[in-house]
Amino acid sequence: MSGFRSLSTVDEALKRLLEAIKDHKLSVEEVSLENSVDRICGEDLLAPVDIPPFNRSAVDGYAVRYIDVLSASPSNPIELKIVGVSEADYDLGTLPKVNPGEAVEIYTGAPIPFGADSVIMAEFCKRDGDKLWVSKPVAYMQNISVKGEDFKTGDLVVAKGVKLKPWHVGALASLGIVSVTVYRKPVVLIASTGLELKQLGSEDHSGKIYDSTRPMLKALLKNINCTVLDFGILPDEPTYTMKTISKHLESVDLVIITGGTSLGLRDATPEALNMLEGSKLIFHGVRMRPGKPTGAYLVKDRIIFMLSGFPVAAFIGFKVFVEPAIYALTGSKPDPQPTVKAYVTRRLAKPTGVKAYIRVRVYRSQNRFYAEPLRLTGSGILSTLTRGNGILVLEEEVEGLEEGEEVEVLLTQPFEEVE
Amino acid sequence: MSGFRSLSTVDEALKRLLEAIKDHKLSVEEVSLENSVDRICGEDLLAPVDIPPFNRSAVDGYAVRYIDVLSASPSNPIELKIVGVSEADYDLGTLPKVNPGEAVEIYTGAPIPFGADSVIMAEFCKRDGDKLWVSKPVAYMQNISVKGEDFKTGDLVVAKGVKLKPWHVGALASLGIVSVTVYRKPVVLIASTGLELKQLGSEDHSGKIYDSTRPMLKALLKNINCTVLDFGILPDEPTYTMKTISKHLESVDLVIITGGTSLGLRDATPEALNMLEGSKLIFHGVRMRPGKPTGAYLVKDRIIFMLSGFPVAAFIGFKVFVEPAIYALTGSKPDPQPTVKAYVTRRLAKPTGVKAYIRVRVYRSQNRFYAEPLRLTGSGILSTLTRGNGILVLEEEVEGLEEGEEVEVLLTQPFEEVE
Repeated sequence: MSGFRSLSTVDEALKRLLEAIKDHKLSVEEVSLENSVDRICGEDLLAPVDIPPFNRSAVDGYAVRYIDVLSASPSNPIELKIVGVSEADYDLGTLPKVNPGEAVEIYTGAPIPFGADSVIMAEFCKRDGDKLWVSKPVAYMQNISVKGEDFKTGDLVVAKGVKLKPWHVGALASLGIVSVTVYRKPVVLIASTGLELKQLGSEDHSGKIYDSTRPMLKALLKNINCTVLDFGILPDEPTYTMKTISKHLESVDLVIITGGTSLGLRDATPEALNMLEGSKLIFHGVRMRPGKPTGAYLVKDRIIFMLSGFPVAAFIGFKVFVEPAIYALTGSKPDPQPTVKAYVTRRLAKPTGVKAYIRVRVYRSQNRFYAEPLRLTGSGILSTLTRGNGILVLEEEVEGLEEGEEVEVLLTQPFEEVE
Repeated sequence: MSGFRSLSTVDEALKRLLEAIKDHKLSVEEVSLENSVDRICGEDLLAPVDIPPFNRSAVDGYAVRYIDVLSASPSNPIELKIVGVSEADYDLGTLPKVNPGEAVEIYTGAPIPFGADSVIMAEFCKRDGDKLWVSKPVAYMQNISVKGEDFKTGDLVVAKGVKLKPWHVGALASLGIVSVTVYRKPVVLIASTGLELKQLGSEDHSGKIYDSTRPMLKALLKNINCTVLDFGILPDEPTYTMKTISKHLESVDLVIITGGTSLGLRDATPEALNMLEGSKLIFHGVRMRPGKPTGAYLVKDRIIFMLSGFPVAAFIGFKVFVEPAIYALTGSKPDPQPTVKAYVTRRLAKPTGVKAYIRVRVYRSQNRFYAEPLRLTGSGILSTLTRGNGILVLEEEVEGLEEGEEVEVLLTQPFEEVE
């Protein structure tokens, strides 16, 4: 029984992890545009056509020659003759033509008739039969959406590896694209170990506690669009764990085992993973708090993560290592993270050489943000995440913080206003 | 044909909107904990038990009296006698007792035996049969998770109106809670109007363009957990629009009609909504850019939104008005928004009295953030959202920005590093 042979820093461990899976990419699949939001784009999507497909009106009004109405004003309206109409559903070949002194009634989205070079909005005109009085000048090309000004044929619309957002869906729809190639969802096998655990819903009345880490991790995985294979609580038996992983490894992209990752009396997960044929340790033991016993093995091109059985340590391990690995499988980036600059409300000490993830409560008072470190910092203390709304990351070399120091805090939930 | 009678500011319009629906709350429903992530908590959830339920060990090791090992060191190990074992699945009534000079083998999560006041980790001990040598002192209560230190019976775990995050799921699981009361998903009826539009997938070869605003809005609604009833593209006929809404109003929480909201030649949406029995205008016409023709009506306690048919204007109208209304239906808050402080790369002019939402491209270069306003700012120009990755909001009173001014930008996508 001894401590970890050597602890890695977070950066070292992450670098080794990403290096180990750099050639492992998910395969792609085709989904309807409607179902593509939040999926990772699997190819460079180019515009197949120009958008707009032709010069079109951006408003309802009258297509005119701007030079004809240069001097128009409410007291001096310019009279034009209406010679036709351009509607959005008109055949492009039968458009009327605008000669000097003429106008064409036109609707939003309709093609600009030949000869016209601007559109005057209906609200600045008065009409009687085919006579039109324009009471305001209009600029050259005003209210005209020019062919290809939004997208030109061949433009890159969405790059491979981009997470599809609602506006990408809109842009692709405007181009008439009905389905897109996306990376398939990563499949993640998850299982807990630990004699002390019982399954949520269990009627076991011994001293066991409910397994809370696995439901939390499943929710985290669901939030980044993974398919989860849940193997529940494994018996405390390395051979069983090893066989379970071995049997399903080919059909999953990633494995997460929680618990049994320290070097205690019965921490059997490293033992199980060492037994796995072809397994290679990437790292085990990290200079971080919480989450020190986090580890990862590589078997073929699959990562097997060992996360702490303690929920907060597992949460930090997930955010720091599992998420980046999942993003790497598609070459994508995480969404931008909400942060605020805040003043620490009390002195904080920490050992150097360890990266610390401190749960804080962020609030705003008189337009200044404050971050109050939560007193309970045990790695099992879930209430620091539910009571807090932010995480303060302190780098290895930092010895602590003085009261009132300004820090950047990651916001996990909305902050409160305090008088 | 004339302009809007009076334009509201964004703040006025939003205030009137939220006032109009302040008594409209969604009903609640019960879902399994597993399916509760991202749903809005519908009641104050209190801890039904203490967590931990008893004093338990946080590590694998030996339960001891700290006073017995005060002087322990590698060169002077203290010998204790092992008198039993405490396992996580042990009956709490049959625990061994620790007397002076004794220790009990203990596992993570197992109850602390009577008499013991701390746990020494296995890695600091050597064992031979029932003899134990401890080579390090331990602090009073060290490695013990105290009954109720995470949650005490009756503690508020999740407040009504909080969006359930993975750590809430974890906390509720630790308490043995298998299902939670959440607000049901808001039901939103959405339809487009506009003769110029054709449905995605349509083979219409006239001058019509694909409806891109509705697919984008559906994705935005999906992202905040709404159920969408999609009525497609409505014929350009106010009576038809009015009847469609009237028929389904009772079974939805919110209606969004896009297009036809300006005051052009055929902008029929306000006409349709005026005809709706009992309809009351909340606002129509906002001092914002894009999104000026945004409007909202109240019918009974349902909001009917009129959003621009132009995708970017509809996007801004959705973010500024529809989202806050949806959050108000459950008393919840939006997730914190990612922002950065950035330097504007060029001069920007804007009319005063109008709130502007400017699409920018944010990048980082040598540790400084820059925001480059995108040239194309037409409200139909979707590419400003796909090429950009941020939105810069300029308040009514601002006249513009000088090159190099520092501003806060909302990040919609990851930023890039530039040399």
